[in-house]
Amino acid sequence: MIQFTIEKPKDEIRPYLQEKIDNLTKPKGSLGALEDLAMHIGWIQQTLSPQLNHPCHIVFAGDHGIAAEGVSPSPQEVTYQMIANFWNGGAGINFLARQHHFDLRVVDSGVNFDFKPGDPIIDKKIRKSTRNYLHEAAMTQSEMELAIERGAECAQACFNDGCNIISFGEMGITNTSSSSLWMTYLTGIPLDKCIGAGCDHTGNIIGHKYNVLKKSMENYSGDASTEDIMRWFGGYEMVMAVGAMLKAAELKMIILIDGFIMTNCLLAASKLYPEVMSYCIFGHQGDEAGHKLVLEYINVRPILNLALRLGEGTGALCAYPIVDSAVRMINEMNSFKQIQVTKYF
Amino acid sequence: MIQFTIEKPKDEIRPYLQEKIDNLTKPKGSLGALEDLAMHIGWIQQTLSPQLNHPCHIVFAGDHGIAAEGVSPSPQEVTYQMIANFWNGGAGINFLARQHHFDLRVVDSGVNFDFKPGDPIIDKKIRKSTRNYLHEAAMTQSEMELAIERGAECAQACFNDGCNIISFGEMGITNTSSSSLWMTYLTGIPLDKCIGAGCDHTGNIIGHKYNVLKKSMENYSGDASTEDIMRWFGGYEMVMAVGAMLKAAELKMIILIDGFIMTNCLLAASKLYPEVMSYCIFGHQGDEAGHKLVLEYINVRPILNLALRLGEGTGALCAYPIVDSAVRMINEMNSFKQIQVTKYF
Repeated sequence: MIQFTIEKPKDEIRPYLQEKIDNLTKPKGSLGALEDLAMHIGWIQQTLSPQLNHPCHIVFAGDHGIAAEGVSPSPQEVTYQMIANFWNGGAGINFLARQHHFDLRVVDSGVNFDFKPGDPIIDKKIRKSTRNYLHEAAMTQSEMELAIERGAECAQACFNDGCNIISFGEMGITNTSSSSLWMTYLTGIPLDKCIGAGCDHTGNIIGHKYNVLKKSMENYSGDASTEDIMRWFGGYEMVMAVGAMLKAAELKMIILIDGFIMTNCLLAASKLYPEVMSYCIFGHQGDEAGHKLVLEYINVRPILNLALRLGEGTGALCAYPIVDSAVRMINEMNSFKQIQVTKYF
Repeated sequence: MIQFTIEKPKDEIRPYLQEKIDNLTKPKGSLGALEDLAMHIGWIQQTLSPQLNHPCHIVFAGDHGIAAEGVSPSPQEVTYQMIANFWNGGAGINFLARQHHFDLRVVDSGVNFDFKPGDPIIDKKIRKSTRNYLHEAAMTQSEMELAIERGAECAQACFNDGCNIISFGEMGITNTSSSSLWMTYLTGIPLDKCIGAGCDHTGNIIGHKYNVLKKSMENYSGDASTEDIMRWFGGYEMVMAVGAMLKAAELKMIILIDGFIMTNCLLAASKLYPEVMSYCIFGHQGDEAGHKLVLEYINVRPILNLALRLGEGTGALCAYPIVDSAVRMINEMNSFKQIQVTKYF
């Protein structure tokens, strides 16, 4: 598997950042989360004047063999239909990308559909859908390695276009199932606490979903290493997101993490390279049952809690303006030295 | 006192709004708070295609006689110094107003300073500082009525400029003390639960602040009506905000509510005209101790919780992009009728 070199940002700049933030014309600490974000971003970028350049959002799309078991009430065809909706500009992620000036890229990681040459999708397809992990590994070792590599290429392409803040989303019917399995293996939290309704607002699907995933775990015969869990239960879109996150961290980009699925991709990435965490800002805590638990496991608190459960990366993009506010704060506010204001508390 | 005519928006449009939202290409309910906001704004504007036009933010500034009792560690001079900072573009509220394209207006409600003719401040000054409510009413009845009227004029001026979404903030050393007193009288929650540290990050001030406010309550001899509480313990900037909120509701504008102080101004406004609540969106739950309780009392849940405690209206403006997202959602997303996507759950 390709290797990544992820360096932890140097801590020497922290007191200088703190001093700058504390001398802005406001009571100390009174801009709360904006101050924490400004510190974090200044630390990542190793500067007292951080900048957000050319934000990119990549939606990785892929299908899952497990869909045959009826773990989602939505048919698999929704995956490719929604891709047409992305092109058309009418999906949830589109209005957010327009609002916040994100360069939106849609990647075919493994959709069960033959796109036509010239379709506006980035072709990184590994295979048309993963295999059904109730019976066998979702992907081969070489497919998984290829997915990591291709995900990394996607992040590199954004970087090459001048991007220094990147977020990821996903489209793939049944990918909350894969996420729940990654979560239970990688955190040790029991499966029943890692499962939610996915996009099913009725909640009726949970019992059946639990039984199928439990049986899949019983049938699993691998070594339970992070790589093997990713391979066996993964989606191509999820493994690509892992590769993209690791490359983004190697390139010292800010990574804006979305909801349940992307948090579990980061969880896997962080098991391979713990330092990836240094580059992550958490956008949103969703309503999916396991999300709160996995966020607690990795010990982070997201910026927003808007009860979103759409996926696509919508929670990450909703949080972007708050990140932007933090950067504007540290760059645009006067200091007590610049203007005559008695330092207040 | 001037009267307001505040109409509750008609409910007939609600099922049509719900139908439009439910037919957007996403699982039902999956955009959580954005869906709630879109419903609310469509209801206020009585349209399936709401718009946000010319957002305005008014900072009302005023000084308080109670400052003489040392209830804030910050000297009173900070109020006028910060106004110069607003003009200069270097305060917290400035970068947020620039980021979100708000027309920022700073109003002298009663600052203890003589501004020069031509200074870029809207002159609505009632008096240089309120009186000290430890010993006497902060303002006379006619001053209070004038403040309500002048606040209403400020909202009307924004409306005349094409604004249909307005927010308010405040600058006035010691105005968390007035807010705590309004809150305890208007909600019945004991004073000690309505008090926080204000902008003092050390928390050392709370004991003294409590004693001064408790003594002020003991010395109070009025009839405890909403009007009398506003008058006795108010700040001019706070009473003006009440007038501005009531006028904004009369004009059917969306009112974006900031933190502790503005929530207490709305509390007072809603005691006079309960229907003002229909027009309010709550931006932020701050760290000030009483804020959570007053929000619970009026039974609302703000969009954000970023641990801000700066004032100026910063919490309201941070939330604006989420409101904008909701409006974009309902206007820009495709419906299942517009594009071939199997309706998913």
